Amino acid sequence: MNYRMIIKSLGGVLCIEAVCMVPSLLISCIYRQGDMLSFSISIIILASLGLGMRRIKTAVNEIYARDGFAIVALGWLMVSIFGALPFLLSGAIPSVIDALFESSSAFSTTGASILKNVEVLPKGILFWRSFAHWLGGMGVLILMIAILPSVKANTLHVMKAESPGPSPEKFVPRIGQTAKILYTIYIAMTALEVVFLLAGGMPLYDSLIHTFGTASTGGFSIKNASVGAYNSVYIETVIAVFMFLFGVNFTLHYALLKGNIKSILRDEELRFYFGIVIVSIALIALNTYGTVFKSVGEAIRYSSFQVSSVITTTGFATTDFTLWPVFSQCILVLLMLIGASAGSTGGGMKCIRILMLFKIIKREIVRIIHPRSVQTVKTNGRVVDEELLSGVMAFFFIYVAVFVMSIIVVSLDNKDMVTTATSVISCIGNIGPGLGIVGPAGNYAGFSVVSKAVLSLCMIIGRLEIYPILLLFVPNFWKRVNI
Amino acid sequence: MNYRMIIKSLGGVLCIEAVCMVPSLLISCIYRQGDMLSFSISIIILASLGLGMRRIKTAVNEIYARDGFAIVALGWLMVSIFGALPFLLSGAIPSVIDALFESSSAFSTTGASILKNVEVLPKGILFWRSFAHWLGGMGVLILMIAILPSVKANTLHVMKAESPGPSPEKFVPRIGQTAKILYTIYIAMTALEVVFLLAGGMPLYDSLIHTFGTASTGGFSIKNASVGAYNSVYIETVIAVFMFLFGVNFTLHYALLKGNIKSILRDEELRFYFGIVIVSIALIALNTYGTVFKSVGEAIRYSSFQVSSVITTTGFATTDFTLWPVFSQCILVLLMLIGASAGSTGGGMKCIRILMLFKIIKREIVRIIHPRSVQTVKTNGRVVDEELLSGVMAFFFIYVAVFVMSIIVVSLDNKDMVTTATSVISCIGNIGPGLGIVGPAGNYAGFSVVSKAVLSLCMIIGRLEIYPILLLFVPNFWKRVNI
Repeated sequence: MNYRMIIKSLGGVLCIEAVCMVPSLLISCIYRQGDMLSFSISIIILASLGLGMRRIKTAVNEIYARDGFAIVALGWLMVSIFGALPFLLSGAIPSVIDALFESSSAFSTTGASILKNVEVLPKGILFWRSFAHWLGGMGVLILMIAILPSVKANTLHVMKAESPGPSPEKFVPRIGQTAKILYTIYIAMTALEVVFLLAGGMPLYDSLIHTFGTASTGGFSIKNASVGAYNSVYIETVIAVFMFLFGVNFTLHYALLKGNIKSILRDEELRFYFGIVIVSIALIALNTYGTVFKSVGEAIRYSSFQVSSVITTTGFATTDFTLWPVFSQCILVLLMLIGASAGSTGGGMKCIRILMLFKIIKREIVRIIHPRSVQTVKTNGRVVDEELLSGVMAFFFIYVAVFVMSIIVVSLDNKDMVTTATSVISCIGNIGPGLGIVGPAGNYAGFSVVSKAVLSLCMIIGRLEIYPILLLFVPNFWKRVNI
Repeated sequence: MNYRMIIKSLGGVLCIEAVCMVPSLLISCIYRQGDMLSFSISIIILASLGLGMRRIKTAVNEIYARDGFAIVALGWLMVSIFGALPFLLSGAIPSVIDALFESSSAFSTTGASILKNVEVLPKGILFWRSFAHWLGGMGVLILMIAILPSVKANTLHVMKAESPGPSPEKFVPRIGQTAKILYTIYIAMTALEVVFLLAGGMPLYDSLIHTFGTASTGGFSIKNASVGAYNSVYIETVIAVFMFLFGVNFTLHYALLKGNIKSILRDEELRFYFGIVIVSIALIALNTYGTVFKSVGEAIRYSSFQVSSVITTTGFATTDFTLWPVFSQCILVLLMLIGASAGSTGGGMKCIRILMLFKIIKREIVRIIHPRSVQTVKTNGRVVDEELLSGVMAFFFIYVAVFVMSIIVVSLDNKDMVTTATSVISCIGNIGPGLGIVGPAGNYAGFSVVSKAVLSLCMIIGRLEIYPILLLFVPNFWKRVNI
């Protein structure tokens, strides 16, 4: 393990976080709601600590897989912990565990909140909460790779560990360049959504907040009723479409830029993702029409927004879906588990993994019928490596295992089973709302300190797709030998 | 596909079922509660149909993997359908779907019931319900292999498809002999439990019924309050211990007979299974002591019976565990999913699969830390074949997939989510009771016809570990070519 390199990288992460706090400081200066000082102090702490750590001398500049995982896991934990400082220092969230929960929820793009009334919070604090979403969406470390020239050497492992999905692709041979392209697309799409929302009459501040929530598939709002507070079909449509787009693999956005339409239309994950969205909207609209909604139009309006919000793991709401029939709720829970596409800003298990798992089952069936035949699994016409397939299957189990173990701990709070289970699903999948007490009209305030800590960790675990955080608990991981 | 051989084998299955109905006919003759005629007619139908099918001439006697799967899948569906005849003809269960549900539940050793009051049913009918458990526990086809000399040739595939667990073992080179040994151990253990129950003052009829329910890990009782009706620590202890023993791989019982104690003590699955039982009893006792039970002894008494009943997927109850704290209920749901050992009469995913999955995760972690090392997975000191590992991982996914799809269908009944989810878990895992409406004090009467049909199919799917039934829906499976 290259400890010096890890500390140096983590120093870089803290510096980036300090710089990223500046816009929130500016907002707090504009609105003067008493949160200016909290940002100033936080920035000073972050910058001095970060710069100090950056000064460490490294003998070896290589970053191996293990170092990459350590940087990502520790980096994310650190960012979440220090990101809670403004909440605490401003007094907006006086409890330490609550501030940590909110910060983890922000960076992991979960959007789960312990706040019962967000509308009373200072605008700077709310901006920070949402800007943290935006940073977490594409990744703090990918941002660092994009802008800090000194850490560009051999950072593939860092990028791999931070990017969601089984096999992150490089657009161009150089990683720094790939990271820059990713952020350029991300910023451009963000700007585009802001323009669309402004065009619908949404104030600039609100537009920024909701765009950050959409782009990162995070879901924090500044309204207690979430996007539903605007009660505008136009705004809902813009956000629903952008949520869907941010849930698409960024490789495909890059392909669009390059004019490679064919590869987009042929992409199996996109088809699968789009198919699930369409089928789910239809099923929920059919199920809620007549029971919850009086017109077909209304049923489609609310079901399409909610499906887009849940499968992309954003978590915005325009209605309280805990009041829908159980069938619709089951579909939503299933979407929470599936999640968005690999290489997008969305969470969950990712469509490509579910698709591969179905293909593996198909192969198992063919194997039974034709025991002597040799079968491969293909996606987008290419044969998938057996080790990757095995990794996808193992991921499915470990995802469920983390989920079951977390439920067992959270169940000690003796909340009803639906609340217990969906709070965990929601946090691991980075969605935000669940069902029961943690539905769109509820919040996570009622959980015990232990449950809040477990759920906070679940959010980071889910965002980093389990392994980086899991490795921190493996003693062998820390051994100096065998790099 | 060797259609003639399949039909001939299915004829054998029907003949066996006809013979197996004779004891129930005798019981109905003794008690004279109006169910005699229903058994007589059922036996005549089964025997004439079965003997007719047995007369078909086969050109090729070979049974390939596909044929084996077809025989097992169709055999089990047929046995369940025809097994419903006495319920219907006697008028004990007048609805067709209810009779099918009860029969599937009996043969699959689930023990879920649509009956609100079992105590009013004729004794012959109750005996048939429980004897069907006993037959389903070890397997109808294994029974056929053991006693019908003509079908012994190349029936390994049939045995493989019917036996639970990833890799059924032959005790001796000849399959007919293996089947005989299995049934001998099964009968001996059954007799032993009857003796123990009689010694505790339980009437002979009751002892037989509860032994059938224990041996098969089925769980049908003749009391509405299940085993709790006897309120006897002795009876509960005997049943709890025997449930545990019937949940052990029969290979180990055979090893005990052979005096091979070492291989028993070293068996990893047994240690894992025993470990889960002990830890679960301790956790539930701690959780329920003070909240539900006043003394530690009471907490241990009820928790140990319930843990043994649920992990072995028997489903007997001595108390209504839906009234326990959510933590205890979550542990029980987890045990429902895990299930008993491979090669036992129990259901669920089986301990060995969960154990292997954890070992696979361990390997994934080692692979990240030491990317260039080659790692194998071992159980009981032997390297597990990669294809088998892949099969175990695929099984985990397909198990969850069947479970999710069934929940979606059952959720159309708009019962609460806990009832919906646990009814499906309980039926696929062959447990019997779930939580909510389908808890130990409830029943499955309130579900719609569609849900009852889906749940009945889930029980057979779960008993046969998915693939045999799944294959029936694959068009390629039925093609004549490529045997």
